[in-house]
Amino acid sequence: MKPSIPKGTRDFSPVEMAKRNYIFDTLREVFDVFCFQQIETPSMENLSVLMGKYGEEGDKLLFKILNSGDCLEKFSDEELHDKNSMRFALKACEKGLRYDLTVPFARYVVQHRNDLTFPFKRYQIQPVWRADRPQKGRYREFYQCDCDVIGSASLLYEVEFIEIIDEVFRRLGLHVCVKLNNRKILSGIAEMIGEADKITDITVAIDKLDKTGLDAVNEELSNKGVSEQAIALLQPIILLKGNNCEKLSILKETLANTETGIKGIEEIEYILKHIEKLPLTTAVEVDLTLARGLSYYTGAIFEVKMLDVAIGSIAGGGRYDNLTGVFGMEGVSGVGMSFGAERIFDVLNQLDLYPPDSMKTTQLLFVNFGETEVSYLLPVVASLRAAGIRTEIYPEAGKLKKQLSYADSKNIPYVALVGENEMAENKINLKNMLSGEQQLVTTETLIKLIK
Amino acid sequence: MKPSIPKGTRDFSPVEMAKRNYIFDTLREVFDVFCFQQIETPSMENLSVLMGKYGEEGDKLLFKILNSGDCLEKFSDEELHDKNSMRFALKACEKGLRYDLTVPFARYVVQHRNDLTFPFKRYQIQPVWRADRPQKGRYREFYQCDCDVIGSASLLYEVEFIEIIDEVFRRLGLHVCVKLNNRKILSGIAEMIGEADKITDITVAIDKLDKTGLDAVNEELSNKGVSEQAIALLQPIILLKGNNCEKLSILKETLANTETGIKGIEEIEYILKHIEKLPLTTAVEVDLTLARGLSYYTGAIFEVKMLDVAIGSIAGGGRYDNLTGVFGMEGVSGVGMSFGAERIFDVLNQLDLYPPDSMKTTQLLFVNFGETEVSYLLPVVASLRAAGIRTEIYPEAGKLKKQLSYADSKNIPYVALVGENEMAENKINLKNMLSGEQQLVTTETLIKLIK
Repeated sequence: MKPSIPKGTRDFSPVEMAKRNYIFDTLREVFDVFCFQQIETPSMENLSVLMGKYGEEGDKLLFKILNSGDCLEKFSDEELHDKNSMRFALKACEKGLRYDLTVPFARYVVQHRNDLTFPFKRYQIQPVWRADRPQKGRYREFYQCDCDVIGSASLLYEVEFIEIIDEVFRRLGLHVCVKLNNRKILSGIAEMIGEADKITDITVAIDKLDKTGLDAVNEELSNKGVSEQAIALLQPIILLKGNNCEKLSILKETLANTETGIKGIEEIEYILKHIEKLPLTTAVEVDLTLARGLSYYTGAIFEVKMLDVAIGSIAGGGRYDNLTGVFGMEGVSGVGMSFGAERIFDVLNQLDLYPPDSMKTTQLLFVNFGETEVSYLLPVVASLRAAGIRTEIYPEAGKLKKQLSYADSKNIPYVALVGENEMAENKINLKNMLSGEQQLVTTETLIKLIK
Repeated sequence: MKPSIPKGTRDFSPVEMAKRNYIFDTLREVFDVFCFQQIETPSMENLSVLMGKYGEEGDKLLFKILNSGDCLEKFSDEELHDKNSMRFALKACEKGLRYDLTVPFARYVVQHRNDLTFPFKRYQIQPVWRADRPQKGRYREFYQCDCDVIGSASLLYEVEFIEIIDEVFRRLGLHVCVKLNNRKILSGIAEMIGEADKITDITVAIDKLDKTGLDAVNEELSNKGVSEQAIALLQPIILLKGNNCEKLSILKETLANTETGIKGIEEIEYILKHIEKLPLTTAVEVDLTLARGLSYYTGAIFEVKMLDVAIGSIAGGGRYDNLTGVFGMEGVSGVGMSFGAERIFDVLNQLDLYPPDSMKTTQLLFVNFGETEVSYLLPVVASLRAAGIRTEIYPEAGKLKKQLSYADSKNIPYVALVGENEMAENKINLKNMLSGEQQLVTTETLIKLIK
């Protein structure tokens, strides 16, 4: 029996884990300094919490956990004879695996509302599970990484999220830009062209401009029942060009009569005004084609795009007003974003941007010449480890060639050879595995050399 | 609808997460410096990998995941009519949640044997799931933390694990001792008393000495069919007293005629000889009553006990010779241990031993006096964050009392007040929330003060 893992899942090797830890640790450090606090929720939620939150398709993609014990006991013969798998699943399974981090977060906020200080700034880095058809880059178990502030309508948090994006990708060495839109502007546009009830159709269609082009967008709008007149009015707005200032000034004229639209423009202006004064390296570009397809955003919408790698957005988020409403806690405004950890992992791999020390491989291997040497070396190795140097002794005295080939296959940069002479001199014969260069050094010098 | 989580599972609040991260980060740092590398395996394994590995009871306690799609399709009416829940579960579920980290690790080693460099030193910190009855301190989802070396019989790794234990608990500030035994000594004893085939019964009985006392152990041995003569021979060994040296010298005499027993004694002597020369703070005590009830240990067995808190062992492990045999890879020796992360969490909570900085709470809150001040402050806050200080601005200009009460409820130690005068002077009015003391400082001084 050759063992294997379920399709769509992955083992992470030491190298992959080191890379993933580098990404997650970077995110954690940035979230920390911006005073976001980590929470974790259980992998399993009650199915009643999850069902109906992700549409009919989502309900099917939830992994359901069979009740333990006698799971068939409570079924009548008729129910089983029926062979209705979904109805069966809902009775045979009380629990399901987390499908995203948003619904568990909403559940968490409502459940613990009396213990939380609002505004509540939280982040969460955990795996989620979806019974999707596995394909390249899409897994049945993958990590999400969300940060949100809930309980305040202050636009300062929108500014803060742009600072966070700038800091995260600066640390990771990735060149990105931020696309910024506002749902209120989109609503204002729909109102202005007299199609306020078609706001969702319009934003979904606009979102496809980059992919399908103007004709297809206009055709889709027409198919959705947007009038020819409205579509005509929409053209200059979809194709809006220029820098942020130019775009906003045209929008201000066009949307002058829509209160909502003007509110959206003011929000964007507020954000842009503040980030201008900050030493950011990331450009922020107003982009009306950005809708993120998500109907729950109510204010700012933003997305992070790579500048020099062709890949979809690697982070994004926005302002919402009713995350917790579904659990009975209405009117709580929040703003949040999600970092696409798996995509960031792919991009960093492609560009090979991991700092050497993030790999956490052995820095120094002591060759094992036998018991006398090992006895002598154990305290030396302990002092090197105390100095923070990742050190090991080869476990058995054996052929030097075998020991060096262990160092090679683990990419260990330094090997130390300590035999009779070196012990007598209280020195270490240090070999640089890249250059082949050897030198006789004290423990203190060795620590300095390797650090 | 008041939302809740499945019984036996937990939400981790920011404070709990900070504490847990402190423990996991400490473990990671120590594993790193000893050159153990992290891996992760999927939460779900194929049920064929998990079934039969944990006994009949374990099979029942596995959480099984209902096949997605039409899960009832392949069942005949007879099979459903049968209502045999276990047989049903095995056909309706291909996947189950990880029950421990040992079996997935064995599966990992076998599956990736051609890509690994042996000896392979890995650690793994991940949740596991068991459909156990939830009770105080026992959860249905909890973290395990394992580290193992596989592919070498060298006793140097036993020495290394004692060094790791010493370093981990020194860093955590916990006073512990290590109990050390060797399965070969136990086998030698069984052989010596002529009950070699009852080795498991004997070790299980000996393991209970601390809990039930000598009479109960002797009674259990008798019930298991160990002869009166053998039980009599066993007495001095069960009740062996003295320091390690004294115990070993008595054992050497008693087990002189058993090759296995002498081998076990030599192994313990090797370990003790080497750790004597290391600057450890943890005492290591030979303890023949230690058996860990696990039949797969073949050499060293060790356990970590708290010195000043009454709690079961908080870490333990040993040498095994056939971890991977069940997946067809025979004769691979390894040694490993598991840190009881949940128990360590309980003990650190009880003793309140978390360093203040591990809490990752906001260090400095800027009061929000309005738009002008916020504009002025944003770059100041950015420079403090760049210096690594966890800083936030209160999101809305509002009553000072409300803002200070936010600082209070989040235990923020410093609050900064910057109004018209401070802006004119380019200074910050810093209030120490504990002492109430206020002082006017520059940004540079503030950074030094808080760091």
